[in-house]
Amino acid sequence: MIAEIICVGTELLLGDILNTNAQYLSARLADLGVSLYYQTVVGDNEDRLIQTINNAKERSDLIILSGGLGPTSDDITKETVAKALNLPLSLNDDQAKKLEQFFLYRNIPMANNNLKQAFMPDGAIILDNNNGTAAGILIESSRKIFIILPGPPNELVPMFEESVVPYLRRNSNDCIVSRTLKLIGIGESSAAELVQSIIDKQTNPSIAPYAKLSEVHFRITARSTSIEQAQHLITATEVEMRKQLDKYIYTTEEKELEEIIVEILSKNNNTIAIAESCTGGLLSSTLINCSGVSEVFKEGLITYSNESKVRELGVDKNVIDLYGAVSKQVVEQMAIGIKNRAKTDIGIAISGIAGPTGGTEEKPVGLVYIAITYKNETFIKKLQLSGNRMKIRTSAAKQGLVFLYQVLKESDDL
Amino acid sequence: MIAEIICVGTELLLGDILNTNAQYLSARLADLGVSLYYQTVVGDNEDRLIQTINNAKERSDLIILSGGLGPTSDDITKETVAKALNLPLSLNDDQAKKLEQFFLYRNIPMANNNLKQAFMPDGAIILDNNNGTAAGILIESSRKIFIILPGPPNELVPMFEESVVPYLRRNSNDCIVSRTLKLIGIGESSAAELVQSIIDKQTNPSIAPYAKLSEVHFRITARSTSIEQAQHLITATEVEMRKQLDKYIYTTEEKELEEIIVEILSKNNNTIAIAESCTGGLLSSTLINCSGVSEVFKEGLITYSNESKVRELGVDKNVIDLYGAVSKQVVEQMAIGIKNRAKTDIGIAISGIAGPTGGTEEKPVGLVYIAITYKNETFIKKLQLSGNRMKIRTSAAKQGLVFLYQVLKESDDL
Repeated sequence: MIAEIICVGTELLLGDILNTNAQYLSARLADLGVSLYYQTVVGDNEDRLIQTINNAKERSDLIILSGGLGPTSDDITKETVAKALNLPLSLNDDQAKKLEQFFLYRNIPMANNNLKQAFMPDGAIILDNNNGTAAGILIESSRKIFIILPGPPNELVPMFEESVVPYLRRNSNDCIVSRTLKLIGIGESSAAELVQSIIDKQTNPSIAPYAKLSEVHFRITARSTSIEQAQHLITATEVEMRKQLDKYIYTTEEKELEEIIVEILSKNNNTIAIAESCTGGLLSSTLINCSGVSEVFKEGLITYSNESKVRELGVDKNVIDLYGAVSKQVVEQMAIGIKNRAKTDIGIAISGIAGPTGGTEEKPVGLVYIAITYKNETFIKKLQLSGNRMKIRTSAAKQGLVFLYQVLKESDDL
Repeated sequence: MIAEIICVGTELLLGDILNTNAQYLSARLADLGVSLYYQTVVGDNEDRLIQTINNAKERSDLIILSGGLGPTSDDITKETVAKALNLPLSLNDDQAKKLEQFFLYRNIPMANNNLKQAFMPDGAIILDNNNGTAAGILIESSRKIFIILPGPPNELVPMFEESVVPYLRRNSNDCIVSRTLKLIGIGESSAAELVQSIIDKQTNPSIAPYAKLSEVHFRITARSTSIEQAQHLITATEVEMRKQLDKYIYTTEEKELEEIIVEILSKNNNTIAIAESCTGGLLSSTLINCSGVSEVFKEGLITYSNESKVRELGVDKNVIDLYGAVSKQVVEQMAIGIKNRAKTDIGIAISGIAGPTGGTEEKPVGLVYIAITYKNETFIKKLQLSGNRMKIRTSAAKQGLVFLYQVLKESDDL
């Protein structure tokens, strides 16, 4: 079944609100094995909405509209769909009664224009709205299905789950299942090159690469008649892909890199402390976003000034003078300093030039050093990052995680 | 000028990511006085993309596409636009050189398929990408304008601001000018209520409220034949609005709250140190994102464990035992402790229960205390926040900034 989504509302075209309905509906349709080909946003304008509905009718089997079911005169979705399908509207007594009860229950007088919400296209199936006054509408017309949902997400989501999901399940034979291989230590193009021949020959499962911050994800999506069969197809593809990519894959679970790292540290009873300069707490903060990190994370120190690097971490002032605060010598002393001070198994330090000022020819903006001290060894990574101050800082913190994972892997700690 | 937006990417149709680009572009086009009639999302599929481009060409003057400029074979936007417009692609030497330098600079081997990003449609204007390898493209063809932008928001936004905004301004007779009143300490509906009569009677300038994290913004947008005249219209409206909102407005400049705070501290030669528990470095990190913060920010400490609160900040262990780590007593001692230790003018501390575990009936998830010590006085704020762990932590850090601004204001430091 080919579907498309039409979100109606001028506020979306003005950028006043984020279109979370489109994402929610898209993800749920994918779960249900419905192929979504288009999302369209159109304003509260009859001509353009009719045009959009006519386009959709030509190319899709299932057309889901959201928004424009309210009581005011700029709410035109129901009326316009009825017009496009040549269906007359008439007052639905049940719906009128429900509306009256809704207002009575809340002890609010019902405005006259509210009765507009009780007019329904002939032959429509009414979808109950337990969270508002706008009933949803389902119309089967010339082998096409039209579903109109209210715009507010707290009305749309429950209505979709309660009424639309059961309806679509009854009308579908397919299951769609996805699994994501998450990679670090390789760029998108190099990773894609390694598995291009597999991607090219695949149709089911399909494979889609996504570039994330310092990560590459491959999403494998299979369609089948049962979940088990779809999982089986995915596993076969994963095995093929692992022949090329295994060493870069850190998980296939729905987990972030920091969660995987906290799990590893926790399993090995390892503790960690972090000293940050340019990242200013971003790396610590990312780890601390993992619930249960308290067993693992002992202390974080933001030593932005040279003075605090010396006083708090015991960095040798002469070494700073000689090599500069952004150098492998200083970052090494910082890592050892924070580890000793917090008495942890692992110490990490990051120092870099986040810009926009402070760069030189020899040490340009974006130069970042990361040091990790673990088991009496200190590993150092030098990076040349790019982008604005925020981008460099965010990338540096993420690279700290990537490097930590790699050091743990090298130490056979996984 | 009639515009539409086409976002290209199967990940959007699968609901994997939220389409923030569509919102951002829509809001910016509205600012620039461009009328946006449609947003479309289409997958990485040539036939459907061509169809979408052809539709757009019929009905719009300005077509902005985003996504699908990457190096892999499923990135087809540039190639498909060129095909739809009958423009051949050829290797652009400048772009090829830039790509080589990009990889050389980072000391990463350049994959062969990266060179795909240096092929450009004949006659295209190239838009520099300072945050990635995908250059943007601007094509003027048969009195239509096509603009292709990279998908990642951290590349799309700077490119739009740096290259597209100046271009659109040159192509418009109208001057559109905006000014944003940024408010803290009041919610969106209360703020809107105070100025509803002004909003209702305005057409030029128009006034649009936006709810941001712990902030409310009112964007005043005027259209006129000259910038001066538009500014004049805006100022008259701002004066009206300030009669109701003045005490909540912290700036009308294009600056974030943290930048305003760093400027105030810097002007007054005040230094600051921060001790964070649940926020784990988020507050320090936000301040450190301001360039030039080094004069102001002396030290940050992430004392996630009780042990480090005692050892590093001198918090009385008995006080923790008696009142708990999340209490006004402990957060007060933390703020005083970090101020004394770092010898700064101001000490800030945050402690809270970010969840999902750790809440009790008496101290539920979302309970956060913030303390600020300044001029021998300690101010304490108790908050009950909501949302998931990340949301609570982000809100808590932001509330730390809001509170700091309010304390500085109370102390007549602005």
